[in-house]
Amino acid sequence: MMINWNNMDTLTSIQELSKIKPVELAQVMAGENGAERVKKYTVPMAEGMAYNYAAKQVDDEVLSGLAKLAEEAQLVEKFEELYNGAVINTGEKRLVLHHLTRGQLGNAVVADGVDKRAFYTGVQEKVAAFARKVHAGEITNEAGEKFTTVVQIGIGGSDLGPRAIYLALENWAKKQGSFKMEAKFISNVDPDDAAAVLKSIDVAHSLFILVSKSGTTLETLTNESFVKDALKNAGLDASRHMVAVTSETSPLAKSDDYLAAFFMDDYIGGRYSSSSAVGGAVLSLAFGPEVFAQFLEGAAEEDKLAKNKDIFKNPAMLDALIGVYERNVLDYPSTAVLPYSQALSRFPAHLQQLDMESNGKCVNRFGERVNYQTGPVIFGEPGTNGQHSFYQLLHQGTAIVPLQFIGFRNNQIGMDVVIQDSTSQQKLCANVAAQIVAFACGKSDENRNKNFEGGRPSSIIIGDQLNARTMGALLAHFENKVMFQGFVWNVNSFDQEGVQLGKILAKKVLAHETDGALKEYSDLLNI
Amino acid sequence: MMINWNNMDTLTSIQELSKIKPVELAQVMAGENGAERVKKYTVPMAEGMAYNYAAKQVDDEVLSGLAKLAEEAQLVEKFEELYNGAVINTGEKRLVLHHLTRGQLGNAVVADGVDKRAFYTGVQEKVAAFARKVHAGEITNEAGEKFTTVVQIGIGGSDLGPRAIYLALENWAKKQGSFKMEAKFISNVDPDDAAAVLKSIDVAHSLFILVSKSGTTLETLTNESFVKDALKNAGLDASRHMVAVTSETSPLAKSDDYLAAFFMDDYIGGRYSSSSAVGGAVLSLAFGPEVFAQFLEGAAEEDKLAKNKDIFKNPAMLDALIGVYERNVLDYPSTAVLPYSQALSRFPAHLQQLDMESNGKCVNRFGERVNYQTGPVIFGEPGTNGQHSFYQLLHQGTAIVPLQFIGFRNNQIGMDVVIQDSTSQQKLCANVAAQIVAFACGKSDENRNKNFEGGRPSSIIIGDQLNARTMGALLAHFENKVMFQGFVWNVNSFDQEGVQLGKILAKKVLAHETDGALKEYSDLLNI
Repeated sequence: MMINWNNMDTLTSIQELSKIKPVELAQVMAGENGAERVKKYTVPMAEGMAYNYAAKQVDDEVLSGLAKLAEEAQLVEKFEELYNGAVINTGEKRLVLHHLTRGQLGNAVVADGVDKRAFYTGVQEKVAAFARKVHAGEITNEAGEKFTTVVQIGIGGSDLGPRAIYLALENWAKKQGSFKMEAKFISNVDPDDAAAVLKSIDVAHSLFILVSKSGTTLETLTNESFVKDALKNAGLDASRHMVAVTSETSPLAKSDDYLAAFFMDDYIGGRYSSSSAVGGAVLSLAFGPEVFAQFLEGAAEEDKLAKNKDIFKNPAMLDALIGVYERNVLDYPSTAVLPYSQALSRFPAHLQQLDMESNGKCVNRFGERVNYQTGPVIFGEPGTNGQHSFYQLLHQGTAIVPLQFIGFRNNQIGMDVVIQDSTSQQKLCANVAAQIVAFACGKSDENRNKNFEGGRPSSIIIGDQLNARTMGALLAHFENKVMFQGFVWNVNSFDQEGVQLGKILAKKVLAHETDGALKEYSDLLNI
Repeated sequence: MMINWNNMDTLTSIQELSKIKPVELAQVMAGENGAERVKKYTVPMAEGMAYNYAAKQVDDEVLSGLAKLAEEAQLVEKFEELYNGAVINTGEKRLVLHHLTRGQLGNAVVADGVDKRAFYTGVQEKVAAFARKVHAGEITNEAGEKFTTVVQIGIGGSDLGPRAIYLALENWAKKQGSFKMEAKFISNVDPDDAAAVLKSIDVAHSLFILVSKSGTTLETLTNESFVKDALKNAGLDASRHMVAVTSETSPLAKSDDYLAAFFMDDYIGGRYSSSSAVGGAVLSLAFGPEVFAQFLEGAAEEDKLAKNKDIFKNPAMLDALIGVYERNVLDYPSTAVLPYSQALSRFPAHLQQLDMESNGKCVNRFGERVNYQTGPVIFGEPGTNGQHSFYQLLHQGTAIVPLQFIGFRNNQIGMDVVIQDSTSQQKLCANVAAQIVAFACGKSDENRNKNFEGGRPSSIIIGDQLNARTMGALLAHFENKVMFQGFVWNVNSFDQEGVQLGKILAKKVLAHETDGALKEYSDLLNI
């Protein structure tokens, strides 16, 4: 099939969608009709999870319009192009292959003379073998003692995804007996970040993972020096404590400064790299390679669903389409991600990068300015904490913010108490159920200050428990959602030119090659 | 002077502001004019800090309009009413007295037959005396051993502000030798939150602070039970390990279950309570009462500036007015807070509550629907991390997001490395300077994908170092900013009725008194 990369505003389906009268959410979610919607408007996800969109501003007419949009924008066909190895990242002229780290969705992809699926699984095996040797005490510090801590040095995609997943699985792994090593993360060029982490660990028993694709990221190289100084000051040989995750062509790849180097390539962007060695090394060391393999399996299962042309069998695509409807037809500028799981405390920060860095673009794939809104602002915090904080605005503010809830029936650690006839887990789940209905239906009150207009749309992803498999599926769901939205908006979701100008100007400041306002700010900051 | 509580859209000054042609930021920030703006558009803050708004979309004409708005909306006069003890919180019919915890800005305020300044300082002295006894080993566990850890149990305002401030000052306190006890925080009703914290500490040497004004917050009481179970299981007497921060009328106030009770009252809302005993107990235990006193002094100095009628001597009011201009004239729906300081990692989450819970309202002080936008969505992460994440959208997205930077000339820990001829601290500062100019001025490129339109407004608060005094000043600045904006929008910034409906529905779920959609969601979540 011929793929047409057209701007969204040229599609007839989006114009038809704009003509449909928006759904009155408070009305359709009331009474038995609301109950029917909850039963009907749900799509299975991998690993027993489900995406429920009953409380979104959609009905059968809107959904039919979204199905047409999916077809007209050739979303599944574009995904097929992507996983079969087309140059989807047009800005940097690169393939986009993060799906291959967890499965083969289509044809073999050969690039640079290598079968890329074999390349990624080869790296995984190398990482797994290394991690097993560390856990078995075959790779140790100079004194022959086991490493107890692993520290990831990386920023952006080398930090946010792996950190979010580590926190998501830490207590689960401890509970099920697969916890191997504590992980820490150094990212910021603020010297207090590295200094604080170094003060909190026993460097003699710590293994550091330097993550930089190019081997030139200034923050990461700076923090590496920080760590090397600390190791030297402790009388240790830094090269016995460090591994690199980098590209084969980077200066780090063949250096004697590292115990080992695990390779990544140009076909996986930072924000999509959690299932590559960027996440693989730290997570395999922390939890064992078997847990990381489960994570990949969960992601692979979810990826398969993204191939379905039927929007009711493709949760990522449906989620993406509803998001486009909210952004471009209903004109809502931001979206909140609200996991009812303390373990997902940093998952919103990862999704913030994933979404805003991928689709925060004002030009299309061909560099032409688009005439419609693209990616929304993404933010969020775990519930129930957020309920006691910014939910006030979500319920009664002047602007509507679409919501994306995530909830699990069971906790991870298995400790709980019964207070007022319910467990904490039941209270947690009761709260997320209550919030969805409160946002959708509202409640009239003669005191307008206590009046809730409702009509505030939300969806929820529900699973049994947050574990390696469901975490993998969740990650893949959102990666694919963002990809599908990028296809609709006709932007390149896989480059990030917007981060370059600041880097160039910062170098000028450090070289004292500034004038005008930049010189004044530099002076104010005593640089 | 007679105070008029008028809706913003009735003010002639806001109508005049809408008629002014918006400033072309990229143009005015270029060349020598830009340098002049940086020198001119700055307002001193307390503790040697400054609020610089050169890169905001304002010029002398807009500023003159904002000064008129301040006058017409009687912002300083309304603040005077507030600190002199008027019933500013009209919804709950309460005074608003958090400023009194750190200073006396006007007349003595007597409520419930008590001088409230004396009440708050009395509580502070009680907290200080208690903390000193704990530090001196005069108050110990049953075995006569010193407490080493303090754990705050609270949610929302009892968690976010104190936690953000603890993280902000932890490394600074360690460096300067005033660090006394490690602090941890339990907030979420998710049982994994309390379980994980309890597993990470030595309960026998831990002191728990239960924070609940009413003594009825379900999350907090649930987590208290969690902790009591853990203490009991360790064979310990819970009452020897717990203190309460609560109101005098709460069931916790006179209970034998606590070593001590420190009182708060109804005149300080949760999100404004960091300078009350809510922040005072945990921060005095963690860092010593002297450090907490410095924090209060910094806040008090900043509060004094908020009394100035001249917008160029009142940084919080100017910041507030520029925010209103961005929200209501320029129509920007969100604002990012971007501290270039890893220690401020959770300060954006506190400001998110402070701002969105205070001004996320669609009715005015009298319960009437307003016809204009009120509080924006607030989000943020520390730089330079954010640069490698969501800044892509901030630079090149289709929507403009106003930015609020915070930066310090010096780090806290004093460890640093020189790489490529500059320290990490210099790199950190160079980056924030570079970002301001990149956002404002942009850069033309024939490749539209590498083109930066600029025109994206930001301000920066610059200080020498993040310490107890500057932290206090920062906190007060934002509290007062939010207050002034609430005055302009004519909303009650001090209640939060929007959180009630969810609570009521959650109780119904737990009592199995549900039907319709709520019953279906409850079933899906196995409640």
